[in-house]
Amino acid sequence: MGKQSKTAITPTRAEDYPQWYQEVVKASDMAERSPVRGCMVIKPWGYSLWENIVRVMDDMFKETGVKNAYFPLFIPLSFLEKEAEHVEGFAKECAVVTHHRLEKGFDGRLEPAGALNEPLIVRPTSETIIGDSFSKWVGSYRDLPILINQWANVVRWEMRTRLFLRTSEFLWQEGHTAHATKEEAIERTQLMLDVYARMAEEYLAMPVIKGRKSASERFPGAVDTLSMEAMMQDRKGLQAGTSHFLGQNFAKASDIKFQTAQETEEYAWTTSWGSSTRLIGGLIMSHGDDDGIVLPPKVASSHVVLIPIIRNSEDRAKVMEFVESLKKELNDKTYHHRRIRVEIDSREIGGARGWEWIKKGIPIRVEIGPRDIAENSVYVARRDKNHKDKVSIKKDHFVGEITHILDEIQNTLFERALSFRKKYTFSIDDKNEFYDFFTPENQEKPEIHGGFAHSHWCGEDVCETKIKDDLAVTIRCIPFDNPLEKGKCICCGNSSTGRVVFAKAY
Amino acid sequence: MGKQSKTAITPTRAEDYPQWYQEVVKASDMAERSPVRGCMVIKPWGYSLWENIVRVMDDMFKETGVKNAYFPLFIPLSFLEKEAEHVEGFAKECAVVTHHRLEKGFDGRLEPAGALNEPLIVRPTSETIIGDSFSKWVGSYRDLPILINQWANVVRWEMRTRLFLRTSEFLWQEGHTAHATKEEAIERTQLMLDVYARMAEEYLAMPVIKGRKSASERFPGAVDTLSMEAMMQDRKGLQAGTSHFLGQNFAKASDIKFQTAQETEEYAWTTSWGSSTRLIGGLIMSHGDDDGIVLPPKVASSHVVLIPIIRNSEDRAKVMEFVESLKKELNDKTYHHRRIRVEIDSREIGGARGWEWIKKGIPIRVEIGPRDIAENSVYVARRDKNHKDKVSIKKDHFVGEITHILDEIQNTLFERALSFRKKYTFSIDDKNEFYDFFTPENQEKPEIHGGFAHSHWCGEDVCETKIKDDLAVTIRCIPFDNPLEKGKCICCGNSSTGRVVFAKAY
Repeated sequence: MGKQSKTAITPTRAEDYPQWYQEVVKASDMAERSPVRGCMVIKPWGYSLWENIVRVMDDMFKETGVKNAYFPLFIPLSFLEKEAEHVEGFAKECAVVTHHRLEKGFDGRLEPAGALNEPLIVRPTSETIIGDSFSKWVGSYRDLPILINQWANVVRWEMRTRLFLRTSEFLWQEGHTAHATKEEAIERTQLMLDVYARMAEEYLAMPVIKGRKSASERFPGAVDTLSMEAMMQDRKGLQAGTSHFLGQNFAKASDIKFQTAQETEEYAWTTSWGSSTRLIGGLIMSHGDDDGIVLPPKVASSHVVLIPIIRNSEDRAKVMEFVESLKKELNDKTYHHRRIRVEIDSREIGGARGWEWIKKGIPIRVEIGPRDIAENSVYVARRDKNHKDKVSIKKDHFVGEITHILDEIQNTLFERALSFRKKYTFSIDDKNEFYDFFTPENQEKPEIHGGFAHSHWCGEDVCETKIKDDLAVTIRCIPFDNPLEKGKCICCGNSSTGRVVFAKAY
Repeated sequence: MGKQSKTAITPTRAEDYPQWYQEVVKASDMAERSPVRGCMVIKPWGYSLWENIVRVMDDMFKETGVKNAYFPLFIPLSFLEKEAEHVEGFAKECAVVTHHRLEKGFDGRLEPAGALNEPLIVRPTSETIIGDSFSKWVGSYRDLPILINQWANVVRWEMRTRLFLRTSEFLWQEGHTAHATKEEAIERTQLMLDVYARMAEEYLAMPVIKGRKSASERFPGAVDTLSMEAMMQDRKGLQAGTSHFLGQNFAKASDIKFQTAQETEEYAWTTSWGSSTRLIGGLIMSHGDDDGIVLPPKVASSHVVLIPIIRNSEDRAKVMEFVESLKKELNDKTYHHRRIRVEIDSREIGGARGWEWIKKGIPIRVEIGPRDIAENSVYVARRDKNHKDKVSIKKDHFVGEITHILDEIQNTLFERALSFRKKYTFSIDDKNEFYDFFTPENQEKPEIHGGFAHSHWCGEDVCETKIKDDLAVTIRCIPFDNPLEKGKCICCGNSSTGRVVFAKAY
């Protein structure tokens, strides 16, 4: 442990936040870069976190009547072109399939052959291909609503990538619904944002602000985009899930028509909503500390690691027996409807084990040696506390209290993230103050600025653009919770009817 | 119900088996063709069946120590080329990404732009890209074994496709493991085949023959391919899952080396094993009848449909209350560790409802009208019996017996499929008889031939090829269960040490 001078991660968050992020992901063993440009490898520790997130969200979706289905990976170019804003929004980041086999060329090397008549786009999102199915599935108002979700991989070619936050390929879910009325579609858009927010706050322990995007930040082709925004520890915003009311735009593009009860023909009203492995990036940046990531117990890859301390070989059998039996006892208990997940780390690498699990963010570490066994106790450390802060507890008491401890950790993480956001959120009405707020305190660390500014905005693109150009600050959302309030636009001084959230963002 | 003359599906299996398959899939609402060449849309009823299959297999994998991870969709051409046989095996069916954006051309239309330096292949399988990760993860023998599985979509460009059986894109799992010794890798190859066979027989109710592939039928680059083969109702074989011992071929190609306990350096021994949505095609062709598909209860999308019979509006409230409360009672029970899945179909479309659920293959249909309620009974039909075969049972008795009924249906399907296979499996030692066996009885129905022939084979490619050329019959596998037995090759008459399974196949 000698090498772990003060913190397990170098640099610390304060020293160099972006680099800290890279290091903390690497140290957690959750994911790594692949040799394929912009694509990541999600390693078992990261993937099981994703599996837990998927399971929770999938149940939530199904509770609202949504069913899962699967649609093609490829979208013909002509489909993407059906909605003008949509294709414009994605044209710059499309992986394009142009051939369907490989053949030896003149130099004997394999090259693409079998040119396709029409290029296929690897889906960046599936409104147009799913819309085509909906157009066949919908005949009458009796077929509506259609409530579909797909768990899939999508590709948006990115030049600058960051693991989990921005990768060319990522895993996500995309929900797509069609409704007979505008009101019902709007209600669904709101409902799914609420589901996302519940997932973020109750499971990822990540407080979010729900609101509406400004026109310039809308999904390409949407009438209205709702989103939830979280504050990361560098005080930047992260958009963690979006829900779009698409009006009849995509229904017209894909010809999703239905016969009403009055026997007239109408276009359906559609919605789409998505969230992705980006949530993992948000989770890391919400809770991670200078010793590594910190996993919220409700979605943690695993809950508890048992670390047998064996100093000489005659202790081995006794210690391992105790550890195995404790694992069984814990496995038999449930935490939020699922079995408690337990690891045993019996590798012979001494103190390095503890640090590995700290960096992996496991909620509870338990050391067990012959002396503990003699006293029927265990030596327990919680990831939400200082790594030196270990306590000896009677084994039975620990087993009895485990779900309570996990809940405490879950709550601590949420409260801590909420306090952090409150601490760095300000109502700002003065333009100079606003500009100062978003000017880095230290030019060498441009990532650290003020935080979230709740300021008035007149609603005009020109002001939004000026602030973006001047400060690289965007309107994260027009929050639902902010009251109507007369004020003056932070940029032009014209009258405004409410505050919006300005921040730098991922 | 007038239109349902004799059977719900036209043509019947006997009339035109391939067309029956198309119709039965369509009528079940499980999947449909998409506008994208060779790709399918898996609809909710089909996808939930896949979800159930995934859940069972995923648990089985994890019990053997396997962990899930995720690797890139794209494989650089140079990676695929690392193993010569491997690239040759897949070159003819690769979707090739050559560009990473779209731009307006001279005629104002969008076309591929941003040519890639190296083409990317949409993964047909991931040995080479996962091998690259393994080469980084393995340093010492202490890092072995690595036991990884990935649930993913893959693309193998097909010219002639059939829903679930052969599509350009399909969903699958691919397991990849690396070991320190040859023996351990061989053991893992066998273990995963056993897992597949257990899945097929115990859950899909599909009896399989486990065995080894002949050299010509091996996975490109494998040393040994094990497979399980099932007989479909047209007496053809279906390869339903394969497990490959890759020797050190891919380890050498991807440079997966480790330091042994003796501090020498060695290449790892690797395996891979896969199964896909093709299992659904096998399930349909194993159990489907002339009224539609028949779902084995253990993986069925849903177990029971409750069909309220409401003849006049004053009955409605009473009937619906009874139905809702029965749904709750059934939901509270578990069948093989999961809640019983129940549908209520209260659409006002009369008798058509019953037929829809027959075609969808739901195990149990329950009609409930005012008279049933008066007697506290329900009117129950089982999908494994004739559709007219309905019985009135006291409601409480039905609830009490439901898991037992589901188990009975599960067993019936397995036994029926096993009898069918036995009925059409023959030991054939005479060449003329062999040729007759595989010559269609009726030239207009080339799909109906004899079945599985257990015949002697000398082991030479030339005989295998001749039979394939003459009859379109292949060696499905060299079964593990067949005893060593001296005999003469069915083709050349030279000596043989055992029988193999010959059949036409999907």
